Amino acid sequence: MMERMDLKTEVRKMGKKAKDVSRLLAQLSTDAKNKALLEMGDDLKKNQAFLIEENRKDLTAGEKASLSPAMLDRLRMTPEVIQSMAKGLREIARLPDPVGEIVKMWRRPNGLTVGRMRIPIGVIGIIYESRPNVTADATGLCLKSGNAIILRGGSEAFHSNQAIVHLLQESLSKVGIPGEAVQIFSRIEREAIKEMLQLEEEIDLIIPRGGEELIRFVVAHSKIPVIKHYKGVCHIFIDETADQESALKICLNAKTQRPGVCNAMETLLVHEKIAGNFLPKIAEVLRKEGVELRGCLETRKILSGIKEAKEEDWYEEYLDLILSIRVVKGIEEAMKHIATFGSLHTEAILTSDYQNGQRFLREVNSSCVLINASTRFNDGFELGLGAEMGISTSKLHAFGPMGLEELTTTKFIVYGEGQTREL
Amino acid sequence: MMERMDLKTEVRKMGKKAKDVSRLLAQLSTDAKNKALLEMGDDLKKNQAFLIEENRKDLTAGEKASLSPAMLDRLRMTPEVIQSMAKGLREIARLPDPVGEIVKMWRRPNGLTVGRMRIPIGVIGIIYESRPNVTADATGLCLKSGNAIILRGGSEAFHSNQAIVHLLQESLSKVGIPGEAVQIFSRIEREAIKEMLQLEEEIDLIIPRGGEELIRFVVAHSKIPVIKHYKGVCHIFIDETADQESALKICLNAKTQRPGVCNAMETLLVHEKIAGNFLPKIAEVLRKEGVELRGCLETRKILSGIKEAKEEDWYEEYLDLILSIRVVKGIEEAMKHIATFGSLHTEAILTSDYQNGQRFLREVNSSCVLINASTRFNDGFELGLGAEMGISTSKLHAFGPMGLEELTTTKFIVYGEGQTREL
Repeated sequence: MMERMDLKTEVRKMGKKAKDVSRLLAQLSTDAKNKALLEMGDDLKKNQAFLIEENRKDLTAGEKASLSPAMLDRLRMTPEVIQSMAKGLREIARLPDPVGEIVKMWRRPNGLTVGRMRIPIGVIGIIYESRPNVTADATGLCLKSGNAIILRGGSEAFHSNQAIVHLLQESLSKVGIPGEAVQIFSRIEREAIKEMLQLEEEIDLIIPRGGEELIRFVVAHSKIPVIKHYKGVCHIFIDETADQESALKICLNAKTQRPGVCNAMETLLVHEKIAGNFLPKIAEVLRKEGVELRGCLETRKILSGIKEAKEEDWYEEYLDLILSIRVVKGIEEAMKHIATFGSLHTEAILTSDYQNGQRFLREVNSSCVLINASTRFNDGFELGLGAEMGISTSKLHAFGPMGLEELTTTKFIVYGEGQTREL
Repeated sequence: MMERMDLKTEVRKMGKKAKDVSRLLAQLSTDAKNKALLEMGDDLKKNQAFLIEENRKDLTAGEKASLSPAMLDRLRMTPEVIQSMAKGLREIARLPDPVGEIVKMWRRPNGLTVGRMRIPIGVIGIIYESRPNVTADATGLCLKSGNAIILRGGSEAFHSNQAIVHLLQESLSKVGIPGEAVQIFSRIEREAIKEMLQLEEEIDLIIPRGGEELIRFVVAHSKIPVIKHYKGVCHIFIDETADQESALKICLNAKTQRPGVCNAMETLLVHEKIAGNFLPKIAEVLRKEGVELRGCLETRKILSGIKEAKEEDWYEEYLDLILSIRVVKGIEEAMKHIATFGSLHTEAILTSDYQNGQRFLREVNSSCVLINASTRFNDGFELGLGAEMGISTSKLHAFGPMGLEELTTTKFIVYGEGQTREL
């Protein structure tokens, strides 16, 4: 009980500190923020040995705890990883400052001039797992957008994250910004997350980044708005008129270029009129890359010997070299399949038919809808946002990749000349 | 237990229906939606006698339950109230359709053309109290923005709300839109709200409109994103250089034109250099309108005999003819007071000093910040949004008045020519 009270007090104190400093961060000049970002990048590089040493503690613990080689790999901080963290911070410094931007301005009949001005959200809480580079990326994005950040990383990266935040805080102090602009939990129990999720008055937004189970836990316990990303069951529909050479390249790219990420293709939908011709070709290309195929009844008539795709396959985010394939009657059935089994993440149509392309773009309401391009482009950098805080598959506030703009909100500003309201 | 299971099933069924119909609503043409809105307005007027009869049942029950005269007044549907509901629907028909708007479009170095297109949010749940006109307003706004709506009105307006929704559903059917576009709870127990708030898969957004207690209940129980409005503790700061004649008019308007609404002034902050001169004048003007004044120590030295404003007064949303007054050293102390006691709703500075005006506008991060105008202008109609779904004082998705645009989100659309991703 005593323990629990201490935790509550400790977490609330972090929230209060973040809220206090957030007012100051909202007013920082672009120059001051950029100077801090460059300093942070330099200091990470200069302290490479320290970071690698602290990271080693996590790796040793991870080996003892028998983490998978893939997990250990994501955890590992090499000189290259540190270089790329520093480069990320420098790139954020180069992006335009969203704070203070006047998004729109108009004049009312009574002479009031009304506008909408971008302002920071305030305090952002990030709950994440594994990769320590998120610590620096998220801090850089929040600083540039004028927000205070509270981090709660995974226990497996405890020492690495503490070390990074320690350096970032020092860099901030050097340029005259309070270190409290970035805080990280030193307590890693789940109870600490629960307490954090109660701080409605102090924290304005929670962004969980991790597995579906973590995200469901956060949504279930949070009084604070959550921007979330459950999964990416991404589809490509090959229309009757698709350019088949191009379709082969796009499907190969979408499935195999990085199968473990959320914007990789999981289900291929093929128009029945070209299935007999196209499926053997795509099967050959994908099998060369080691992709396991699972098909509907029609698919299996054409590609004999492949596994059956069961109903649960259509819902599945494999994140692996596995692809489910379904033959459909046309765009109507393709869109119906996507509406039923999709996760609102990313869908593409490959077609030469103008009407079908436009219709798919208009009617499919996933966070990113593409014509004749790979699903892999649903990414903040690739779409031109300059940076990415994650991808949202919930429709509130942000839908799709979140860049700096999505870390702000707008307030109404009004220039008057003594106006009063009559009705 | 059986009862509880029935409720769960019933509520989930409503959610499923709304989700199904939302796909169709998202694709409706502007013409079809406007036709429905006009039909709805006409049908409400034609069925005035029926509405007044149903409303009478609520009024009778309300009288028996000893509702306050103010409550009964808000509940009452007169021919004028029905006319104005119909007029509201016609006005929504005249507003531009936000769905399908391309907010931005740009080209990437690899030739991809990327844009952001407005789409409906999906299914919106409204939980509200008292005034039956919200039933028609909210339905009109959701329909125009392509969203399905689920309503849960207060028990005191049960018959009125059921009658309105019945008519709205009939109007929809007449023009070929499924009546499920608008649904209303026939069960009014709080348990029904709790069940509704679990429907993460079916409902995309909850907007509670009512007292602070209701809103806290919704936030505490919801797995669905909530856009909320706790209270409006609105400030006016009279700077040393304010035009005092204009300041008297603005303060009178902000405090007394409609004291019971959220954008009325609750606290007046006055620069110490003009307090001796300005306070007696404003006190005279406000006392004539029956406003009770409560002041800080300095204020009470100037306005002898007024009550003391205690610390809790600075936090208070009176919603009544009461005003707390504080003398401050200048803009710095005024902004500090607002940051400490404000509710992020609406704040105004009255000044002739350019720098102070700009600084207040930039540094005060409430949903609406004004120079030389009444706080009463923080309203969707007055700011030019054309209509209003309520005012948000939380920063996510919408901050300030919510119009049709705020009932949409944007998806990324991509026109490609066979592009694949390399890194």
